Amino acid sequence: MSDTQQQNTARLDEEEARRQLLELAEEFYDQFEAGDIPEMTLPTRTKSNIVFDEEAGVWVYGDRTSTRSANSVRGARKLLKAVYAVEFLAQQLDEDRSSTLRELYYLSESWDSEEAQFTSQDESNQLIEDLEIVSGVTREDFHMRPEESGAKVMGPLLLREQTRRGDREIHCQDDVGQGGYQIPNNPDTIEFLDNDAEFVLCVETGGMRDRLVENGFDADRDAIVVHLGGQPARATRRLTKRLHDELDLPVVVFCDGDPWSYRIFGSVAYGSIKSAHLSEYLATPEARYVGIRPQDIVDYDLPTDPLSDSDVNALESELEDPRFKSEFWTEQIELQLDIDKKAEQQALASQGLDFVTDTYLPERLGEMGVL
Amino acid sequence: MSDTQQQNTARLDEEEARRQLLELAEEFYDQFEAGDIPEMTLPTRTKSNIVFDEEAGVWVYGDRTSTRSANSVRGARKLLKAVYAVEFLAQQLDEDRSSTLRELYYLSESWDSEEAQFTSQDESNQLIEDLEIVSGVTREDFHMRPEESGAKVMGPLLLREQTRRGDREIHCQDDVGQGGYQIPNNPDTIEFLDNDAEFVLCVETGGMRDRLVENGFDADRDAIVVHLGGQPARATRRLTKRLHDELDLPVVVFCDGDPWSYRIFGSVAYGSIKSAHLSEYLATPEARYVGIRPQDIVDYDLPTDPLSDSDVNALESELEDPRFKSEFWTEQIELQLDIDKKAEQQALASQGLDFVTDTYLPERLGEMGVL
Repeated sequence: MSDTQQQNTARLDEEEARRQLLELAEEFYDQFEAGDIPEMTLPTRTKSNIVFDEEAGVWVYGDRTSTRSANSVRGARKLLKAVYAVEFLAQQLDEDRSSTLRELYYLSESWDSEEAQFTSQDESNQLIEDLEIVSGVTREDFHMRPEESGAKVMGPLLLREQTRRGDREIHCQDDVGQGGYQIPNNPDTIEFLDNDAEFVLCVETGGMRDRLVENGFDADRDAIVVHLGGQPARATRRLTKRLHDELDLPVVVFCDGDPWSYRIFGSVAYGSIKSAHLSEYLATPEARYVGIRPQDIVDYDLPTDPLSDSDVNALESELEDPRFKSEFWTEQIELQLDIDKKAEQQALASQGLDFVTDTYLPERLGEMGVL
Repeated sequence: MSDTQQQNTARLDEEEARRQLLELAEEFYDQFEAGDIPEMTLPTRTKSNIVFDEEAGVWVYGDRTSTRSANSVRGARKLLKAVYAVEFLAQQLDEDRSSTLRELYYLSESWDSEEAQFTSQDESNQLIEDLEIVSGVTREDFHMRPEESGAKVMGPLLLREQTRRGDREIHCQDDVGQGGYQIPNNPDTIEFLDNDAEFVLCVETGGMRDRLVENGFDADRDAIVVHLGGQPARATRRLTKRLHDELDLPVVVFCDGDPWSYRIFGSVAYGSIKSAHLSEYLATPEARYVGIRPQDIVDYDLPTDPLSDSDVNALESELEDPRFKSEFWTEQIELQLDIDKKAEQQALASQGLDFVTDTYLPERLGEMGVL
């Protein structure tokens, strides 16, 4: 794709986002004109209306809907705020600007109607999520930037990022320092140009990411190493999904061996309850868990800590979670409750600094058919 | 400096670090040989032995010392652990490897003497700090990597980073994406080649960092924008200091207007109690605070939150803190207690998205003589 084509595509997306937003305002207008009380219908956004789509393997909203109607002062105020926000977003897209959720909250102080100003950031955050759902356009396409930034990538991948200062071609090994390539807030500004990768390895902790890079694992095994940095930002999850879908690369996730890390895997693979309307955009249901498995604690005799009460509760709630209802997870979680132990990724260092790259990952990835 | 010279310098530093470590072990050996009970003397590392060096403008250790002697089982065990750690570090330097503090803790499980194994990570962390103090060599020069990674840089700066895969020349505007240049764990692997910068602007939050980059502030004002990301990592503070000392650039710090952010400024400018032995290496006493000042809350009529009890306590303790004993800070902190308000950086958005770059920063930096 040439530079001009690429920019046209991005530009069309922005126009599409703008159109979808203005359509929403138009709907209110039409309702007024027809003498109806304006209203907006949304899927009910509570935990009880989240269902696991077995076929797609991700979380989505169920069938229940709620209606925001102007037939009460409270409802009318919500719609007023929505209209002001739509106007701001449409203008932002028109000027090719962007802003953060926090800035939107503060910006509302400058709006001429005091009734339209947000009283808390929760309110403006939720409105943006509502607009995402109603318009089917993601926050990133409205040019709303997240506060949390994406993590970093190291591997045999050549990409082109559209920045506000022109396009940048970056090879994620040859053109970056030891710290790697920093994922931008909106990874859809990235085009993948070329790669020699065999798979994508998402890594929870910075210490382990640095270990893999120091040991040259990305170069020796043709792996794109994506640092998750704990619970991954939307940008990190989106990039991971695109690496899978567009480059047809298997994705494996490497975390600590405790229930909180299984949730990190879950948010990469199945999506989160908070962003269930975006599962198709963010989740990679084909992602697989490489470890640390409770089985690894036993097999590799890793240094461990005992499970705390909250670890046990979290494991028990995962046993009830449809996302973890597979044979693999049931076995592993029951084993963990049984041995009453957890272990960190870096515990592999107890067998030497090269153990993870020379022994553990090759063995596990071999078993999984990735290597 | 040519590539070869640069590499020789780095190599010499490693040899120097190795020599300093082995000297410590030699000292124990000499003590044994002379029939003395081996011991190691350290500055007492408690809050009461931290003094503010008025001349250097940074925190340093006072005159009190503690002695670790092998005349008790507990003391002997400490020295044994130190000797094992020295051996590991010397070998690591010899092989040009590196490791994290967490890995060191786990690695000790593979040591042949069970008495030498660490019982907690606090213990191994403290030992490394002890070795830093005794040897006068920083952890980074032992090749101990931090868990926390450095933040990112955007600005008119061309640098060369020595990586394990060869040198990389990177311009921190032209060769990076919107996310900027990722600071490596050890920023002393960076050589500054060229720059068109007028000053360094350290920014607390990711949202504000992204705002400045989107508005092109780094390009328009020839600023090197360093993202602190909350309490800055050692790598970020070290790089900031080097930008000041080697490029002779003024450093200004831009944070939220609350007591916790003043502490972030303090750690950049004066050093922290935890790393008082490294203040000369990490702190930039010439750094100045651009805002948000309590005075700005008044002057710019910013959206605010009331102070919480813990905010008030933190402000009162800052009034007693020698680092904040200047006229500037006394006035500002007393004003803040008086108006009972705090404001975030992003609150400037209440006057529009360009207010910070078109009005606020130019005004403040003008007053400070930076612009």
